[in-house]
Amino acid sequence: MAQLINDKDLNFLLFDVFKAQDLTHYPRFYEHDAETFKSILETAQGIAQDFFAPHNATADQNEPTFDGQQVKTISEVKTAWKQFADAGLLCAQHDYDAGGMQLPTLINMAANAYFMSANPSSVAYSFLTAAAANVIQAFGTTEQKDRFVPHMFSGRFAGTMAMTEPDVGSSLGDLTTKAIPQADGTYLIKGQKMFISGGDQDITENIVHLVLARIQDAPQGVKGISLFIVPKFKTLSDGSLAGANDVQLAGLLHKMGYRGTTSTVLSFGEKDQCTGYLIGEAGAGLKYMFKMMNEARVGVGLGAAMIGYRGYLESLEYAKNRPQGRLVSDKNPAAKPVNIIQHTDVKRMLLAQKSYVEGALALCLFAARLIDEHQAANNEDSALLLDLIIPVVKSFPSAYGPKANDLAIQVLGGAGYTREYPLEQCYRDNRLNPIHEGTFGIQSLDLLGRKLWQHNSKGLMLLLQRMQNTIDQAQHPKTQALAAIFSAHLNTVKKTTQSLGQVLAQGRVDQALGNSALYLDMMGKVIISWLWLEMANQALVKFEHSDLAEDQQFLAGKLQATQYFIRWELPEIEHQAKLLLELDDTCLNMQESWF
Amino acid sequence: MAQLINDKDLNFLLFDVFKAQDLTHYPRFYEHDAETFKSILETAQGIAQDFFAPHNATADQNEPTFDGQQVKTISEVKTAWKQFADAGLLCAQHDYDAGGMQLPTLINMAANAYFMSANPSSVAYSFLTAAAANVIQAFGTTEQKDRFVPHMFSGRFAGTMAMTEPDVGSSLGDLTTKAIPQADGTYLIKGQKMFISGGDQDITENIVHLVLARIQDAPQGVKGISLFIVPKFKTLSDGSLAGANDVQLAGLLHKMGYRGTTSTVLSFGEKDQCTGYLIGEAGAGLKYMFKMMNEARVGVGLGAAMIGYRGYLESLEYAKNRPQGRLVSDKNPAAKPVNIIQHTDVKRMLLAQKSYVEGALALCLFAARLIDEHQAANNEDSALLLDLIIPVVKSFPSAYGPKANDLAIQVLGGAGYTREYPLEQCYRDNRLNPIHEGTFGIQSLDLLGRKLWQHNSKGLMLLLQRMQNTIDQAQHPKTQALAAIFSAHLNTVKKTTQSLGQVLAQGRVDQALGNSALYLDMMGKVIISWLWLEMANQALVKFEHSDLAEDQQFLAGKLQATQYFIRWELPEIEHQAKLLLELDDTCLNMQESWF
Repeated sequence: MAQLINDKDLNFLLFDVFKAQDLTHYPRFYEHDAETFKSILETAQGIAQDFFAPHNATADQNEPTFDGQQVKTISEVKTAWKQFADAGLLCAQHDYDAGGMQLPTLINMAANAYFMSANPSSVAYSFLTAAAANVIQAFGTTEQKDRFVPHMFSGRFAGTMAMTEPDVGSSLGDLTTKAIPQADGTYLIKGQKMFISGGDQDITENIVHLVLARIQDAPQGVKGISLFIVPKFKTLSDGSLAGANDVQLAGLLHKMGYRGTTSTVLSFGEKDQCTGYLIGEAGAGLKYMFKMMNEARVGVGLGAAMIGYRGYLESLEYAKNRPQGRLVSDKNPAAKPVNIIQHTDVKRMLLAQKSYVEGALALCLFAARLIDEHQAANNEDSALLLDLIIPVVKSFPSAYGPKANDLAIQVLGGAGYTREYPLEQCYRDNRLNPIHEGTFGIQSLDLLGRKLWQHNSKGLMLLLQRMQNTIDQAQHPKTQALAAIFSAHLNTVKKTTQSLGQVLAQGRVDQALGNSALYLDMMGKVIISWLWLEMANQALVKFEHSDLAEDQQFLAGKLQATQYFIRWELPEIEHQAKLLLELDDTCLNMQESWF
Repeated sequence: MAQLINDKDLNFLLFDVFKAQDLTHYPRFYEHDAETFKSILETAQGIAQDFFAPHNATADQNEPTFDGQQVKTISEVKTAWKQFADAGLLCAQHDYDAGGMQLPTLINMAANAYFMSANPSSVAYSFLTAAAANVIQAFGTTEQKDRFVPHMFSGRFAGTMAMTEPDVGSSLGDLTTKAIPQADGTYLIKGQKMFISGGDQDITENIVHLVLARIQDAPQGVKGISLFIVPKFKTLSDGSLAGANDVQLAGLLHKMGYRGTTSTVLSFGEKDQCTGYLIGEAGAGLKYMFKMMNEARVGVGLGAAMIGYRGYLESLEYAKNRPQGRLVSDKNPAAKPVNIIQHTDVKRMLLAQKSYVEGALALCLFAARLIDEHQAANNEDSALLLDLIIPVVKSFPSAYGPKANDLAIQVLGGAGYTREYPLEQCYRDNRLNPIHEGTFGIQSLDLLGRKLWQHNSKGLMLLLQRMQNTIDQAQHPKTQALAAIFSAHLNTVKKTTQSLGQVLAQGRVDQALGNSALYLDMMGKVIISWLWLEMANQALVKFEHSDLAEDQQFLAGKLQATQYFIRWELPEIEHQAKLLLELDDTCLNMQESWF
């Protein structure tokens, strides 16, 4: 098996590009230094390698079953869960007081990256639990926190996010699950939720569902939605269990990939005995959920990046060791076959993968650092910038990670199509990511319809400033020309954005937003190009004068991948911009009856 | 379930665009008319719907097993096989004398399209058998034909193509399977073959393998390769069986998709008792195989197109019936949700699918018609044109069919990712197509390194003539502007081709061919654009003055899809052309140690 991440790349990103060590200047992270960060990453890497990677294929081939009574998962999942929890990783970012390590999000995300590469479906239980615990910790009452959170941090309870309903999908405002106020301040919850990952399992004693529901007589739309804690088993204040809470598994969904994670339909309150506890204020449910959504969306982006990364490393290893064919210029049939990595078209497929997945990982770590700057140092600019780029952080890796996996299969050829190699599972697993936590289309509307214009477009201005800094710093002969290409295309993006803003201001919403998917892809390519240029700058600073062959190779690789992405991928935005600027109405005008 | 093909589209393609009825002017097809063609298509459609489609998912979920003794497939596969054979479809194109129907390839491909949409993996056994029988019928001795072919046509025996070997992959010239001449004129075959589809099964009494092997002391490279008939069971001249022929199943390969078709590793001559019969001349094996390869490659293209087509129709039906959300301009949360087909981004995903799959089907039928023109009317121009476009016919559908399936999943969202819907299987099945029968990379080298320049580029000139005719005929206000866009991009292709030809002529092979994958994609987009423009022309001729609402809608749909493909997809070639013209060396110069 290839390694889970190129450690040299991860170290470079964390400490040279995103300056993780500087985070320790924030009071919240005083106790940390680069060494504690590295030691946590080593722990994560070790657990990922020893307890997660080995059963990635096994969990895929033996997906959870439901016999009408109970869900069963393979035992390796529980063992891995316990290792993860025992290492303190379920609450790594939380206060020391709460049992946490006060770890920066940047480092926590990097640790998570190992697990996402090793076994995305087994670690999903952990990530969902951490996310649910975060919500309760942030918005719950002291009593709610005490009752649930310590048991989630310790791994005794798991958590889920129960949002979607069968008839609702992406349109959360239409959800119909009801919450009926009771005299004791609790609520009776009644309704059905669908696609709930980890909604049932046999790994933990209890499952704490965070359920979006509508309190009786609440207004229509998103403003009538509240958030509830709904445990699978009634939970006393000391954490002991007191019988079932009328949450029924209505069925398991069978997915193409991500098979190790249960995907469930859950019925709440079939017997009118399902108790829920309101979190925070009534009607503010989506607000709370969305406060946590940024991290969840970075998490999805990271997963997509890392499944792509894993596929890249596997196909790279294969290409280095598989002799086949000769260079196109070599017509001698008696010549010894070369390893396929020598074929230009194979190099193309590897270089494209490298540019996608290392770029996507950089993007997710950048977002993580912004979260830290905001949460640990109250940097409002960082929050605005993060808010702006979240749709890209979620979507670029989700679109290009699967593309990388597609190329990885192609590098292996027929072997890549078989289950004897891990690539086809990567391809199946990664296909989930453009769908969950907001589809590509939903993200594109969020970006073009909302995020760009918030706070007088300050987020966009901050992004453009950072990009300009990177351009200004690209004075080296090896980056100057690339910076010039980047700068020219950036102007296209500015012009397009301005023009669409004017159309929106005229109230021509359907026209302005009709081709939003093109805009999201364009913005993704520009942001990734910028990060590549930034990586090239930093790599030149760090490695240019190194005597180590290994450093020189690393530098050359970063430069070549920057060149690839900026010369091969970025210019595609010109055509997208043209369609956007023209408000091309081909799709808008298509009629149902014409299909 | 949605329908297998839009019948209106198929009829339009066959009889309006490709004038199937005109084929009946060729002596070979005198006995046919449009009615016999339609009745054969109805038969195919009926068998596909009743005997193939119902077990498509079942075969996927219950893939063939090997207990060490015997391969077992589900019984539905054998029933379907028998229906296909009994309808005469295994030999539909052959002479009346040989029991065939003298059916044009065009109609046979159209019939096959129903099966590819219904159940690509079960029908693979039939297609492989027909292809193997074709080779023996074309190049075998009378004795060989009599011994094997009637039993393949009747469905008693199946056939395979055994080319690839474990260490060889795409580099056929390196294969090592040996053929040792015997005193009686037969050969002892010894070696291992891999990825042999249908290499073992329990459907037929016997399996006739066509095996590429190297006769002792043959020259290295492709010129030393001969083709052999190697039956699984020894076969007497009357077709009766006489014991095993030392062909062992060494293992089943487990694929991501296409699971209903066995993919095998076969050992020939482990006990030195495997008898093979030489077909035609020694050393001409690849020539015979490649004579049949054109049809095989059109078949792969057709399969990819039809799996894409099936996904398109399924996602279209879903989008028409699934209410969710409101138009982006509608801010009233109390408004009734619209069906998702009303969302512009969903229209985009459906329109892209339509343009890919209807375009790809048109391409495959065009190729089929060229085969007919050549085989039934000795039209050498048609043969040259066919030879040129074969890499595109194989590759465009294989690249864009899976893209269509990706979009189909996305239209359904979470539902599309589950095995409760058929889209995820389409996605897995279709991923095989860019790999087998020559990968995308191999096809691109075949096109740019060879096909373009054969016979003084006469094939290319013929193609450009046809394109110019279509441009000239696009005088209608609804097509004129699109023809102008097409014409402009066509000039880019001409310029790029000429320039690369010069580089090749200078002997700079690695430079000229390094980015061949871009060239193949570019040529695919241009050819599909041309076919869309031609469809638009023909649809205007036929439907413009119709009073039927249904005809008007069909026409509008064809025009809008033409507009989509020419405005949204085709212009992407400009950037590809730029990289090709500049002989961009980003990939060529990438070094193994830099990854």
